[in-house]
Amino acid sequence: NNSICIFGTGDFGRSLGLKLLQSGFHVIFGSRNPARANLLPKGVEVLGHAEAAQKCQLIILAIQRDHYSPFLRKLEDVLDGKVLVDVSNNLKINQYPESNAEYLAQMLPGAKVVKALNTVSAWSLQSGALDASRQVFVCSDDNAAKQKVMDIARAIGLTPQDNGSLMAANEIENYPLQLFPMWRLPIYLCAGLTVFVFLYCVINDVVYSAAILEKDTSFRLAISIPNKVFPIVSLILLALVYLPGVFAAIIQLYRGTKYSRFPNWLDRWMLCRKQLGLVALSYAFLHAIYTLVIPIRYYVRHRISTSTIAQAKKNETSTFSAVAAWRTDSYIALGILGFFFYVLLGITSLPSVSNAVNWREFRFVQSKLGYLTLVLCAGHTFVYGWNRFLNVAHFRWYMPPAYTLSLVIPCVVLILKFILIIPCIDKRITKIRQGWE
Amino acid sequence: NNSICIFGTGDFGRSLGLKLLQSGFHVIFGSRNPARANLLPKGVEVLGHAEAAQKCQLIILAIQRDHYSPFLRKLEDVLDGKVLVDVSNNLKINQYPESNAEYLAQMLPGAKVVKALNTVSAWSLQSGALDASRQVFVCSDDNAAKQKVMDIARAIGLTPQDNGSLMAANEIENYPLQLFPMWRLPIYLCAGLTVFVFLYCVINDVVYSAAILEKDTSFRLAISIPNKVFPIVSLILLALVYLPGVFAAIIQLYRGTKYSRFPNWLDRWMLCRKQLGLVALSYAFLHAIYTLVIPIRYYVRHRISTSTIAQAKKNETSTFSAVAAWRTDSYIALGILGFFFYVLLGITSLPSVSNAVNWREFRFVQSKLGYLTLVLCAGHTFVYGWNRFLNVAHFRWYMPPAYTLSLVIPCVVLILKFILIIPCIDKRITKIRQGWE
Amino acid sequence: NNSICIFGTGDFGRSLGLKLLQSGFHVIFGSRNPARANLLPKGVEVLGHAEAAQKCQLIILAIQRDHYSPFLRKLEDVLDGKVLVDVSNNLKINQYPESNAEYLAQMLPGAKVVKALNTVSAWSLQSGALDASRQVFVCSDDNAAKQKVMDIARAIGLTPQDNGSLMAANEIENYPLQLFPMWRLPIYLCAGLTVFVFLYCVINDVVYSAAILEKDTSFRLAISIPNKVFPIVSLILLALVYLPGVFAAIIQLYRGTKYSRFPNWLDRWMLCRKQLGLVALSYAFLHAIYTLVIPIRYYVRHRISTSTIAQAKKNETSTFSAVAAWRTDSYIALGILGFFFYVLLGITSLPSVSNAVNWREFRFVQSKLGYLTLVLCAGHTFVYGWNRFLNVAHFRWYMPPAYTLSLVIPCVVLILKFILIIPCIDKRITKIRQGWE
Ligand SMILES: Cc1cc2nc3c(=O)[nH]c(=O)nc-3n(C[C@H](O)[C@H](O)[C@H](O)COP(=O)(O)OP(=O)(O)OC[C@H]3O[C@@H](n4cnc5c(N)ncnc54)[C@H](O)[C@@H]3O)c2cc1C
Ligand SMILES: Cc1cc2nc3c(=O)[nH]c(=O)nc-3n(C[C@H](O)[C@H](O)[C@H](O)COP(=O)(O)OP(=O)(O)OC[C@H]3O[C@@H](n4cnc5c(N)ncnc54)[C@H](O)[C@@H]3O)c2cc1C
Ligand SMILES: Cc1cc2nc3c(=O)[nH]c(=O)nc-3n(C[C@H](O)[C@H](O)[C@H](O)COP(=O)(O)OP(=O)(O)OC[C@H]3O[C@@H](n4cnc5c(N)ncnc54)[C@H](O)[C@@H]3O)c2cc1C
Ligand SMILES: NC(=O)c1ccc[n+]([C@@H]2O[C@H](COP(=O)([O-])OP(=O)(O)OC[C@H]3O[C@@H](n4cnc5c(N)ncnc54)[C@H](OP(=O)(O)O)[C@@H]3O)[C@@H](O)[C@H]2O)c1
Ligand SMILES: NC(=O)c1ccc[n+]([C@@H]2O[C@H](COP(=O)([O-])OP(=O)(O)OC[C@H]3O[C@@H](n4cnc5c(N)ncnc54)[C@H](OP(=O)(O)O)[C@@H]3O)[C@@H](O)[C@H]2O)c1
Ligand SMILES: NC(=O)c1ccc[n+]([C@@H]2O[C@H](COP(=O)([O-])OP(=O)(O)OC[C@H]3O[C@@H](n4cnc5c(N)ncnc54)[C@H](OP(=O)(O)O)[C@@H]3O)[C@@H](O)[C@H]2O)c1
Ligand SMILES: CCCCCCCCCCCCCCCC(=O)OC[C@H](COP(=O)(O)O)OC(=O)CCCCCCCCCCCCCCC
Ligand SMILES: CCCCCCCCCCCCCCCC(=O)OC[C@H](COP(=O)(O)O)OC(=O)CCCCCCCCCCCCCCC
Ligand SMILES: CCCCCCCCCCCCCCCC(=O)OC[C@H](COP(=O)(O)O)OC(=O)CCCCCCCCCCCCCCC
Ligand code: HEM
Ligand code: HEM
Ligand code: HEM
Repeated sequence: NNSICIFGTGDFGRSLGLKLLQSGFHVIFGSRNPARANLLPKGVEVLGHAEAAQKCQLIILAIQRDHYSPFLRKLEDVLDGKVLVDVSNNLKINQYPESNAEYLAQMLPGAKVVKALNTVSAWSLQSGALDASRQVFVCSDDNAAKQKVMDIARAIGLTPQDNGSLMAANEIENYPLQLFPMWRLPIYLCAGLTVFVFLYCVINDVVYSAAILEKDTSFRLAISIPNKVFPIVSLILLALVYLPGVFAAIIQLYRGTKYSRFPNWLDRWMLCRKQLGLVALSYAFLHAIYTLVIPIRYYVRHRISTSTIAQAKKNETSTFSAVAAWRTDSYIALGILGFFFYVLLGITSLPSVSNAVNWREFRFVQSKLGYLTLVLCAGHTFVYGWNRFLNVAHFRWYMPPAYTLSLVIPCVVLILKFILIIPCIDKRITKIRQGWE
Repeated sequence: NNSICIFGTGDFGRSLGLKLLQSGFHVIFGSRNPARANLLPKGVEVLGHAEAAQKCQLIILAIQRDHYSPFLRKLEDVLDGKVLVDVSNNLKINQYPESNAEYLAQMLPGAKVVKALNTVSAWSLQSGALDASRQVFVCSDDNAAKQKVMDIARAIGLTPQDNGSLMAANEIENYPLQLFPMWRLPIYLCAGLTVFVFLYCVINDVVYSAAILEKDTSFRLAISIPNKVFPIVSLILLALVYLPGVFAAIIQLYRGTKYSRFPNWLDRWMLCRKQLGLVALSYAFLHAIYTLVIPIRYYVRHRISTSTIAQAKKNETSTFSAVAAWRTDSYIALGILGFFFYVLLGITSLPSVSNAVNWREFRFVQSKLGYLTLVLCAGHTFVYGWNRFLNVAHFRWYMPPAYTLSLVIPCVVLILKFILIIPCIDKRITKIRQGWE
Repeated sequence: NNSICIFGTGDFGRSLGLKLLQSGFHVIFGSRNPARANLLPKGVEVLGHAEAAQKCQLIILAIQRDHYSPFLRKLEDVLDGKVLVDVSNNLKINQYPESNAEYLAQMLPGAKVVKALNTVSAWSLQSGALDASRQVFVCSDDNAAKQKVMDIARAIGLTPQDNGSLMAANEIENYPLQLFPMWRLPIYLCAGLTVFVFLYCVINDVVYSAAILEKDTSFRLAISIPNKVFPIVSLILLALVYLPGVFAAIIQLYRGTKYSRFPNWLDRWMLCRKQLGLVALSYAFLHAIYTLVIPIRYYVRHRISTSTIAQAKKNETSTFSAVAAWRTDSYIALGILGFFFYVLLGITSLPSVSNAVNWREFRFVQSKLGYLTLVLCAGHTFVYGWNRFLNVAHFRWYMPPAYTLSLVIPCVVLILKFILIIPCIDKRITKIRQGWE
């Protein structure tokens, strides 16, 4: 018997009904007003709620939670022992004290309630554009009922995932209302740093020029300043990705065991390293493009032609400095190589790529190549700074150039890591992590 | 009992047999000429068709449809009640009036016919390079038989998808013969626009120069003109991605309900927005690279050095214009930011990424950041045009510059969208879409 | 009855226990020292090994293989008829003569041993960051036991794949120890070529300058030389991706049948074409960026301004050469288009994209667009070389410029392919491949 009952002939009910029909099920709608239901697909039955429910073992409730209460209680008898699928969503996270599915289960203790299908949208079911919603989470206290619903989901081309008992319903109902929860912390951090570095650069550069040199360089706000802010923040964030791993190792060394939980703040930090890294990659990408457009900027072209004309007038040519050539070429080459490995880290974070590699390979890329990236990027900045680094003569208002500051955290991370991979320490950590007694 | 029979010792039969053997099944081949079958993997049995079939409950037919007819009829008795898996493909879409599987089912009404496995290729099965063919579609009128075949498919590392009853066989047989059906319309549209804009620019630029200014600028065909065509078409296509959503909202507003189908043309348009957007992204990518190579072009270098020399000769330097610096820097910065969000839209269309986000997040990126992209790209073009926009003095043969035209559709989309998000209208649309009565 | 027993309260045991608990299972730990087990999640039972085993049908052994021997033999009676899940990993590939699971099965012939879950790491289970380890391989000689374990894996959010009988255990145990086995050959090949071309260019360029022209151009090692090495190696590798396909066709033509295996070296070559292609793409990417930074290099800026000043001094302007403009613009345009299709090939190799296209579409992109890429890239190099190609006057120490050499293999591939698609030959190959008799 493969007939399925759907209560509610709204958007979701209809879309689901059509899909089920196409996959070979027999679909019976239960409606308050069976006669009026005109937009339904051909080939389905439409009955009153009680008759429809009697004919099927499984009923999908495609109605809002608000309408459950008076109406379903009346059907208590006919729903007894049946599988009831709750697909409902709310408008806000944790809108009600208990999840909709648990509310339903309390209301109808005789029914086998399954929470499922709430993550797909009616429109995507209908149009086949299941882009963001092929995955459905299923939970129930009744295992057989859950299996049945998962089979149906698979039959209509969705990917069900078993989330355990009905206690998980709350989480499942909150899922479609979330908006990038794991990205929040990294993005706030990045925004904060961006604002800070931006202001620092503006003061150091535009304000200083206006105040002391009496030159209007406000046009630098569009490209020159952002092209300092993006790489500096990117470098700091990249270092912050590898800092927690170093802390974790130190804690394990200190405690002498891996069988103890990390402090909470460290745990949370470690879990958002992926997002932190990807935000850092975005900024590095912007830095790369902002750098590549340098020669087409009016300001740059003007400066170069002015200096050429000045030389021509003075009838002299600046002599070629092999050191300058080496310096610029090396810092650019280091930047490019750093960016390349950065992108590689990004590619391996794509879910489909990371799923196709094993744990050892993933760690190799993310950890080994990640540190290589950090070394290259820090090296790039060092060589860029060259001898102007701590040259106080170049400081404006006693402020060192921003890139000097950006190197602090990377250097700390690299020095600590360097200490941790000294053979004797490394051996101890490895032993601790293998957990042999 | 886990023995499986395969009829036909051809390429596909052999590859499948080997794979099944490796996954722990017992494989029995049925061949016209059991003695001659020499390339078969070690560990299989090879018998005549009848004997082979008798030993198994499930028979895979790895022979062409053309050979079904006289030969299978003879085996009607022995195949009665067995599961027959039809794996055959055709050479053309809808080659025969009925699908191969239905033809088989009519021929042998006693057998349980399952259509499956036709989307994997022999070579990929054999080599393990299942790149484009891990997914197999399965359909049958017999549910138990279908489940069995799906289990087997899973056991050999494939991902079966249940497509319902045998009526779906036609679609399944056509699937491997398709060549990007959803991309056709966007690509034709893009090609048409490309040709049109190209000709417009050639006339406006090269032909005009040749005819009026008597200057040969034909070399502009290689980079300068394409670098107008690509961004202009990209911008138009990007606007066309967001136009149908605006139309849909207007229709819903006008009808006052979401419970009515959109006109057919709108439905089709909305379903190919993803492809349209990706084609537009390709063009934007080409524009970005074409732009970045500008300073290494011989023509550009020559022009710049000529103008520098001319200034040096006249013993003067063009004065620095802060407005020009602001203008170029801002349009370039807008372009880069627009491109960045464009790429982000592209990344979230990767199936594995879109599967890892929920519907709300996907809509946030695709809809909100999509409009942001459109605003940035249109802004980029506006600032690029600056005061030359509708300046008739710059028109050649009364033709406005091409980028002026490219802004028409984006502006229409943005104005309509702006009207639609006015609070009172927006509230009405939201209400309509929530569908509460 | 959904209770599961875990032997061993170590890292893995605990993480797994927590996960199972969250998915609604009842978890019973078996430990040597039940009293001491303090870090275990709340809600589990901890007993001695024998008592724990008695209460469950399925026991997961979360202890090292080394500890199996004296300890499990003692429990032989209580484990009889139960499902034993071996999750153990080794430290080296093929560390022991037989796999851990087979060793276990020999030790306890009465138990139903299943190999599974060894590819997930404790940390990722605990933190939910299952990036590289959602996929688990399962094998067993007992089908029902295997199904049970696969259901459990699915329930905790993993993706089980059936790998057949216990003979596959060895492969499964080696899997997490592998480090990019398919990438090894391509990377060695690439490294070898890189070293060779690098030395060739250094001799041809830096050493020659130092020795004959007595000019120190060592700074060219940072960007100029790498920007020859990367594109040249990329082009050669790209050609090597398409060479085996041509060989295969010739062999099939010669033998007149597809029903014979290719020689071993060809098979292996064909299986690493994807990796070869991606390595080539990385180099092309580096070439693209190295090229785009050309105009911001100090050396280039200095050279250009020097030549401009020289012209200004001599009071002349080099005349504009339309041929030079055409030449540089065309080779750059060809390079960009080649790179674009190259990237497209890369995008379609992403597992999630290649899974979403059918075999015909995948072959269209990889084969047709792949050859187009090769043609464009070779064309780019030809036009770049222009008339300096075999111009012996430009040879240094009788060494032709490196890019001349890089064109040899691409030309061979393209000529052979051109011959193979001559209609009469093509028809014969198609016939052979369709396999009709
Ligand atoms: C562009 C970009 C993309 C990124 N994408 C991802 C991504 O997709 N997924 C992701 O996770 N990260 C991602 N990251 C973040 C980062 O690369 C990884 O988290 C990386 O693994 C960190 O390396 P590590 O060596 O610091 O840490 P790990 O090697 O993970 O070690 C950190 C600490 O964890 C503890 N630890 C690790 N393994 C064990 C063990 N077996 N037993 C006990 N303790 C252990 C140790 O104390 C160790 O010191 C990305 C970063 C960037 C820049
Ligand atoms: C580079 C790039 C990549 C892209 N990739 C993708 C992709 O992978 N997948 C994809 O789908 N698109 C993709 N697009 C296209 C586009 O971004 C999306 O389709 C986007 O969602 C359109 O946004 P919208 O606000 O116009 O439309 P929507 O927000 O979808 O709304 C359009 C109309 O549909 C109707 N509608 C929407 N939701 C509902 C509802 N719940 N109930 C009733 N009616 C409703 C409304 O009438 C609405 O006005 C891509 C675009 C680009 C440029
Ligand atoms: C950036 C990049 C990414 C790449 N990614 C991938 C990837 O993800 N996956 C991948 O596989 N390759 C990949 N490649 C490699 C390459 O593009 C493909 O292998 C491509 O299919 C080769 O095309 P071909 O025409 O030479 O070979 P094919 O068309 O495969 O033919 C090669 C030979 O195989 C034999 N053959 C093929 N089909 C049959 C058949 N049905 N029956 C009998 N014999 C047959 C024939 O003898 C034929 O001559 C990539 C390459 C690059 C540059
Ligand atoms: N739409 C989506 O994209 C989507 C996605 C996931 C989940 N959901 C969930 O699916 C459910 C239905 O959503 P929907 O969009 O289809 O809503 P809808 O369009 O408003 O339809 C609701 C249907 O419920 C029935 N109904 C309304 N009031 C009722 C009452 N007092 N008593 C009994 N039945 C009543 C009506 O059907 P009859 O007139 O036939 O009785 C109505 O068509 C909701 O719980 C929603 O959260 C929807
Ligand atoms: N090759 C692929 O990549 C692929 C992919 C998907 C689907 N398929 C489908 O699989 C089937 C087989 O393809 P294939 O490539 O293996 O073809 P094939 O190489 O031509 O093999 C066909 C086999 O069928 C048997 N056969 C031929 N004529 C017969 C006849 N008159 N009566 C009975 N048996 C006959 C032969 O086996 P015996 O000599 O042993 O009798 C022969 O080896 C086709 O339907 C095809 O569409 C193939
Ligand atoms: N950790 C991972 O990431 C990971 C990943 C995949 C597979 N694995 C596999 O899982 C297994 C356990 O790994 P683990 O990291 O959890 O190791 P572990 O932390 O060292 O824990 C091993 C546990 O086994 C028990 N044990 C130790 N010696 C024993 C003995 N002589 N007799 C009986 N029991 C003994 C102990 O539990 P009691 O003190 O409670 O008896 C101990 O806690 C290994 O086979 C490993 O290869 C681990
Ligand atoms: C070209 C550079 C491109 C770089 C642009 C920056 C991209 C980085 C921004 C990442 C955005 C992630 C989307 C967020 C969606 C989401 O939440 O996605 C959520 C998913 C969820 O994953 P979980 O299930 O693990 O939480 O995360 C992802 O899938 C991450 C995808 C990472 C994609 C990185 C891709 C980099 C590709 C680089 C291409 C190379 C280009 C090189 C060029 C010159
Ligand atoms: C660098 C830019 C890269 C941009 C180049 C343009 C890429 C856009 C072309 C998309 C081609 C899609 C392949 C077609 C195969 C197909 O049909 O694929 C078909 C699948 C099928 O999906 P459905 O199952 O939903 O129909 O569609 C896709 O998977 C779409 C994949 C989109 C990929 C976009 C990737 C953009 C990545 C950007 C990286 C960032 C780079 C940044 C750099 C400077
Ligand atoms: C921007 C260019 C980006 C190009 C940079 C070079 C990227 C090529 C390097 C590929 C690295 C693969 C990771 C190895 C992990 C692995 O083993 O991965 C192993 C998996 C395993 O696949 P199998 O299961 O088939 O063996 O292979 C892959 O998933 C291959 C992923 C290919 C990714 C190519 C992505 C190209 C994206 C291009 C974006 C466009 C950008 C354009 C810009 C200007
Ligand atoms: C394509 C790759 C890259 C190129 C071509 C490149 C090039 C450059 C150039 C030319 C500068 C000097 C800018 C100026 O003069 O204002 C610079 C600065 C800098 N780069 Fe990069 N870079 C690349 C990648 C990176 C990466 C991946 C990082 C790391 C996050 C990085 C970090 C920095 C920093 C911190 C500065 C100093 C910013 C300042 O204060 O001016 N770069 N880079
Ligand atoms: C990397 C990002 C980008 C950069 C650096 C950039 C830069 C430029 C430059 C320098 C020009 C002037 C070209 C010339 O002088 O011929 C230009 C023109 C233009 N750009 Fe962009 N752009 C970028 C992205 C985009 C995007 C994403 C779009 C939107 C589709 C776009 C649309 C246009 C249009 C329509 C023109 C006018 C073309 C013409 O008629 O000349 N650009 N861009
Ligand atoms: C973004 C796309 C590309 C651009 C803008 C570009 C541009 C250039 C330029 C300007 C040169 C001359 C370099 C010099 O003067 O030293 C060059 C050389 C070359 N390119 Fe490309 N190219 C691109 C893509 C490719 C691709 C995809 C290939 C193929 C693998 C390739 C292969 C070569 C080769 C072999 C050379 C000669 C190297 C030498 O010996 O100097 N290019 N390219």
